[in-house]
Amino acid sequence: MNNNLLTIRILLALLATNAMLSFSQNKRLRDYGIEIGVLKTGKYNAITDVDGVKVGHTTLIIGDSIRTGVTAILPHSENIFQFKVPAAIYIGNGFGKLAGYSQVKELGNIETPIILTNTLSVPVASDALITYTLKENENVRSVNSVVGETNDGWLNDIRGRHIKSEHVLSAIQNAQGGRIEEGNVGAGTGTICFQYKGGIGTSSRIIPEEFGGYTVGVLVQSNFGGVLEINGAPIAKELDNYPSQFKYDVDGSCMMVVMTDAPLDSRNLERLAKRAIMGLAKTGGIASNGSGDYVIAVSTAKKNRIPHSSDSLFNETKVLRNGAITPLFLATIEATEEAIINSLFAAETMTGRNGHTINSIPKDKVLNILKKYNKIRVD
Amino acid sequence: MNNNLLTIRILLALLATNAMLSFSQNKRLRDYGIEIGVLKTGKYNAITDVDGVKVGHTTLIIGDSIRTGVTAILPHSENIFQFKVPAAIYIGNGFGKLAGYSQVKELGNIETPIILTNTLSVPVASDALITYTLKENENVRSVNSVVGETNDGWLNDIRGRHIKSEHVLSAIQNAQGGRIEEGNVGAGTGTICFQYKGGIGTSSRIIPEEFGGYTVGVLVQSNFGGVLEINGAPIAKELDNYPSQFKYDVDGSCMMVVMTDAPLDSRNLERLAKRAIMGLAKTGGIASNGSGDYVIAVSTAKKNRIPHSSDSLFNETKVLRNGAITPLFLATIEATEEAIINSLFAAETMTGRNGHTINSIPKDKVLNILKKYNKIRVD
Amino acid sequence: MNNNLLTIRILLALLATNAMLSFSQNKRLRDYGIEIGVLKTGKYNAITDVDGVKVGHTTLIIGDSIRTGVTAILPHSENIFQFKVPAAIYIGNGFGKLAGYSQVKELGNIETPIILTNTLSVPVASDALITYTLKENENVRSVNSVVGETNDGWLNDIRGRHIKSEHVLSAIQNAQGGRIEEGNVGAGTGTICFQYKGGIGTSSRIIPEEFGGYTVGVLVQSNFGGVLEINGAPIAKELDNYPSQFKYDVDGSCMMVVMTDAPLDSRNLERLAKRAIMGLAKTGGIASNGSGDYVIAVSTAKKNRIPHSSDSLFNETKVLRNGAITPLFLATIEATEEAIINSLFAAETMTGRNGHTINSIPKDKVLNILKKYNKIRVD
Amino acid sequence: MNNNLLTIRILLALLATNAMLSFSQNKRLRDYGIEIGVLKTGKYNAITDVDGVKVGHTTLIIGDSIRTGVTAILPHSENIFQFKVPAAIYIGNGFGKLAGYSQVKELGNIETPIILTNTLSVPVASDALITYTLKENENVRSVNSVVGETNDGWLNDIRGRHIKSEHVLSAIQNAQGGRIEEGNVGAGTGTICFQYKGGIGTSSRIIPEEFGGYTVGVLVQSNFGGVLEINGAPIAKELDNYPSQFKYDVDGSCMMVVMTDAPLDSRNLERLAKRAIMGLAKTGGIASNGSGDYVIAVSTAKKNRIPHSSDSLFNETKVLRNGAITPLFLATIEATEEAIINSLFAAETMTGRNGHTINSIPKDKVLNILKKYNKIRVD
Repeated sequence: MNNNLLTIRILLALLATNAMLSFSQNKRLRDYGIEIGVLKTGKYNAITDVDGVKVGHTTLIIGDSIRTGVTAILPHSENIFQFKVPAAIYIGNGFGKLAGYSQVKELGNIETPIILTNTLSVPVASDALITYTLKENENVRSVNSVVGETNDGWLNDIRGRHIKSEHVLSAIQNAQGGRIEEGNVGAGTGTICFQYKGGIGTSSRIIPEEFGGYTVGVLVQSNFGGVLEINGAPIAKELDNYPSQFKYDVDGSCMMVVMTDAPLDSRNLERLAKRAIMGLAKTGGIASNGSGDYVIAVSTAKKNRIPHSSDSLFNETKVLRNGAITPLFLATIEATEEAIINSLFAAETMTGRNGHTINSIPKDKVLNILKKYNKIRVD
Repeated sequence: MNNNLLTIRILLALLATNAMLSFSQNKRLRDYGIEIGVLKTGKYNAITDVDGVKVGHTTLIIGDSIRTGVTAILPHSENIFQFKVPAAIYIGNGFGKLAGYSQVKELGNIETPIILTNTLSVPVASDALITYTLKENENVRSVNSVVGETNDGWLNDIRGRHIKSEHVLSAIQNAQGGRIEEGNVGAGTGTICFQYKGGIGTSSRIIPEEFGGYTVGVLVQSNFGGVLEINGAPIAKELDNYPSQFKYDVDGSCMMVVMTDAPLDSRNLERLAKRAIMGLAKTGGIASNGSGDYVIAVSTAKKNRIPHSSDSLFNETKVLRNGAITPLFLATIEATEEAIINSLFAAETMTGRNGHTINSIPKDKVLNILKKYNKIRVD
Repeated sequence: MNNNLLTIRILLALLATNAMLSFSQNKRLRDYGIEIGVLKTGKYNAITDVDGVKVGHTTLIIGDSIRTGVTAILPHSENIFQFKVPAAIYIGNGFGKLAGYSQVKELGNIETPIILTNTLSVPVASDALITYTLKENENVRSVNSVVGETNDGWLNDIRGRHIKSEHVLSAIQNAQGGRIEEGNVGAGTGTICFQYKGGIGTSSRIIPEEFGGYTVGVLVQSNFGGVLEINGAPIAKELDNYPSQFKYDVDGSCMMVVMTDAPLDSRNLERLAKRAIMGLAKTGGIASNGSGDYVIAVSTAKKNRIPHSSDSLFNETKVLRNGAITPLFLATIEATEEAIINSLFAAETMTGRNGHTINSIPKDKVLNILKKYNKIRVD
Repeated sequence: MNNNLLTIRILLALLATNAMLSFSQNKRLRDYGIEIGVLKTGKYNAITDVDGVKVGHTTLIIGDSIRTGVTAILPHSENIFQFKVPAAIYIGNGFGKLAGYSQVKELGNIETPIILTNTLSVPVASDALITYTLKENENVRSVNSVVGETNDGWLNDIRGRHIKSEHVLSAIQNAQGGRIEEGNVGAGTGTICFQYKGGIGTSSRIIPEEFGGYTVGVLVQSNFGGVLEINGAPIAKELDNYPSQFKYDVDGSCMMVVMTDAPLDSRNLERLAKRAIMGLAKTGGIASNGSGDYVIAVSTAKKNRIPHSSDSLFNETKVLRNGAITPLFLATIEATEEAIINSLFAAETMTGRNGHTINSIPKDKVLNILKKYNKIRVD
């Protein structure tokens, strides 16, 4: 191991510690009495409320200019290549470099962990997923890596391409259930959202028992722009902070990952995925020209997993009827909206490349605006 | 002319009179001090703010159970078949019967007026567009009718299929610019939106001069559901009036027509069309399973019209660069959101088939809620 | 009944008789020792080899200029609206007016018989399917008619729109299994293919037992152009009969209907549908700009029918794995190629509108060319 | 430089020499008097007949088990990122790992050279394109690499991932116009087609002057299966060599690159791309489940290049009308069919990984079959 790597590892260890510390201190949106939507959240209000789903981050904050990272989302803990999951990807606005689209579209499934990272690191992350899959599966000679990205090039020395294979593998290995770190972690380390510091955010919803009581969990990597609203309050207008000129395609992208234990086939997962963009819209996002807005939707229902090999010609599946899917649409919209706002509330001011500083959302002002618009529940 | 037709014509004449009367009395959303978004509206805050665009309605309110109609939108006043317009159709949720999709997708243009009507009357409207086009164009033997619809079958005897060819032709002939009737008119006569009376609504936005100062106009036929919000205020939650059970696919569809004088090719028009769904999302719409949510987007820029016949192998066009399109996205989102709310404000309580009554949105209560959430501008 | 209708009915009766007579006399491609592909055909070498599938024609050959008709294809004999079938539509080239696309795409099923007719009669056929469905299903207020078309306007007075609702209903009612009439019948009455008389054609293939022994049946309405090849022999080149100038979009369209008893979901049916275009390519078709080339694919597997109403939230299905679908692709390609050539062999010279005459393929010359290229099996 | 790299470089040098030797000796399909289609070819019957297009190969044949490579296709010789080209990608069958799809779809252009390589080397090739682009363009922080692939894992130690960044960059740097090497070179080094040795193949067509006299060039990386036909002669049937059982997804993929100097926008380029699959169909390809069949289509017309930066809001373009595009469709079909067969004729028997040997197509037998079916022109 050379010195640089050693340094990185030590830093990673420190960051992990820091993260755990700050982790317990952060208040999330709901802790302030702000409730988005009408459905209940899951236990952690996180994508990990979907049984078996795990999330792992690798965060690179090194020196003056490295502000980036990797987030891994695993639909289950078994060999994903051997037990693929029904999936779909919806392209809200395709100015992005997501890897893996066409095979998911054609075959209706995903066979690797889902990786999020920065724009110029998609290849290295794809390559790492190949490494990961080859190692776990002898004789496999074809792997469809699924990697999403947003561009953190304002705060991060993205041209330096500092993400390495081991960062990706580490995110996968560290993935766990339960509470999830949000904000300046993993793939959200260097992102910007509505001109404030963005990052990773997550949320979940549970649909009524009579529709199956299923959970929908969403995780976002927020890096986009528009005219910010929080729970319907016109934050950007009040703060006079929105791109009146829209001169540049500054306002990047948003990666959204939707997991559900509801048994859905890929066709209905694509429909679910489309609803995440509707949640993004409710935050004031506009999917600008330069935005890469993608939604990856996965059903984790155990019985519908697709074995890589089988003696049978058939898959037997039990899936929700078209007519039973509407509550899941609402759940996806609500969880996406809240996940994005959670990312803003969790992210902290950061200084990076060339001394660029991006401030966190001004929470005091924002809370005052939310009060002005009666958007904070007073018990 | 037989007696029935005579009756209908007299009724239509009366309705026209009534419409004109009520027309001048209705207050629109903005008249109450409610402003959606950050961009300016056009003169009429209507799709007709786009130069040359005309709208015509035929309204059928006959006896106890006929509550339906036709709305025609014309991109320009010349022969549309001979001078086609660049266009795209985006399918938000495809549980609908829109006619004309595939040819618009393949060729990137529209060659007829756009007709909106009820679900079971799409064929008769398509047929009427053929009649219209054949009459105006000798020797033409192929016509791609573009017809959208929503289902007004709760208030209207839709199974009776009362729309006839002449109603469609009449809507085209009556089309005009300037102020547009909203609410219970034309294709919006019998529609239901968020469990209140829906209908036709329209709005427009103008983008800043430095981006070309273009106008985007939207017209909607609102007939869908979800959890209503108006300008960010949680109306449905406050009124405890939303489909907590989502048991039925009651909550129909939304047709959205977007016109702009910005010079866009069909690829960028499709992108524009996708943003209308984001505007719908901001009203609390969820694009439920049973919803047919379509957006038809048209560029009216004169220089880019596509002649049906030409001695040249080429079309010469001047279109906005990808990077200049973002302000139009925002305009589309804002105008769609406001057009939908305008449809709710304009629609009045209606009783129809089987004595079904659908109430208009309770304006007093709604205005109080908007006040509670500080959503009414006080000058 | 007025006189015109009486005349039509008598003519229809006569035509039916004629059809039956000629029916037994026609030799099909295989009767000449020409075999396309490597898979076996079904009993009738027809779409009706798929168990339960029925086909019905209404043929209008009236006076000098009416040369058109309707073909109905039924996936099963029960109430199709109540027991929908998994389905997909692939748009090879979308210069056409097919009705029903978006709902099939969104929901993955078809709920009416499939109707083929001429371009300007799509609305009347859609309307007839509504009539048919409303009659069979009380309270239904939404119907997704599926209607395909090609343009027979050279031989037929298409602007006269002579297809009426009763012609469509009659085609449905007369639908039957077993041997199918080909050539100048039904929707193929007035069509032109490779500058010869086209029409209806059909063929089928059976895949090996170890892959399930399933049947794929194809029916085409051939009305397109290109550079004709038959079983690999360069007919157009030899006859010097191809559009060297491609000056006009004369060479219409091709509607292809694919039925299979293989249990496929809509995603894999769309993949199957795409292969029909590959079969068309092998006849020398080029999907010219003016062509409306659509493929409608349906799985008739009984267990996968989708009940319109259900007490359950779920559909349980048993579908072929992705990896088991390849033989069905080959079957679709072969059956489509042969169905098109069958349409050419069955069609007879016809004179219609304005005295236009379109010759049948010159069978003697063609057989000589096939001999020259060693394409006729000599036992 | 370490020893391994040195070895590789020496081998590459040797290979280049060998290639040049064999290059001048190979007879192509047309040299045997076999003519596909009715249109004329360009000077070299190669994709490089399109003015300005260049092709470069890196071929890795090392030791017993490395049989792979890289092929680069450049639409022009200027900075491609600064002067993007209108483009589209069509997914024939999406079981593949092509990089770059969604941004090309959204924005309608390509901004890097096009790279073809093996399945597991897509990431390293994408990464190399980023390196290439960053180096040529200061301050750029977002690059949409376009990389296609097929799986050469039978002959090549694909799991070893032997393609490195320098191989990709070398292919770009060595790219040139004029005659192109075919067969076992570049990305075609280890591919298999119809159970024979496949590889790189190319062909071109020129459309008639009155349609603009444009050139269409196609380059393929052939690695797929089906039931081989050559110019309509049933080679596979005669040689009894086709996958009667279709038991495995052995028969890979086909990458097709279409270049034309015809001025086409991205919508019509997508239509052009779809026709390449029709050319593939004519060789007996079936786009099996396991196949990744993609077509990348580019217009090189100078006036329509899209500057990355511009002071104007507009692009002015002159593009072919829809109605003028049909001859280009035919050209694409013919050139694709011939490019595939050219790849088979050029490829030579190869032994690779685990001693696997794949024979070249048995030319003598094939020529005899072509004679039997009268497919060889005798002057």
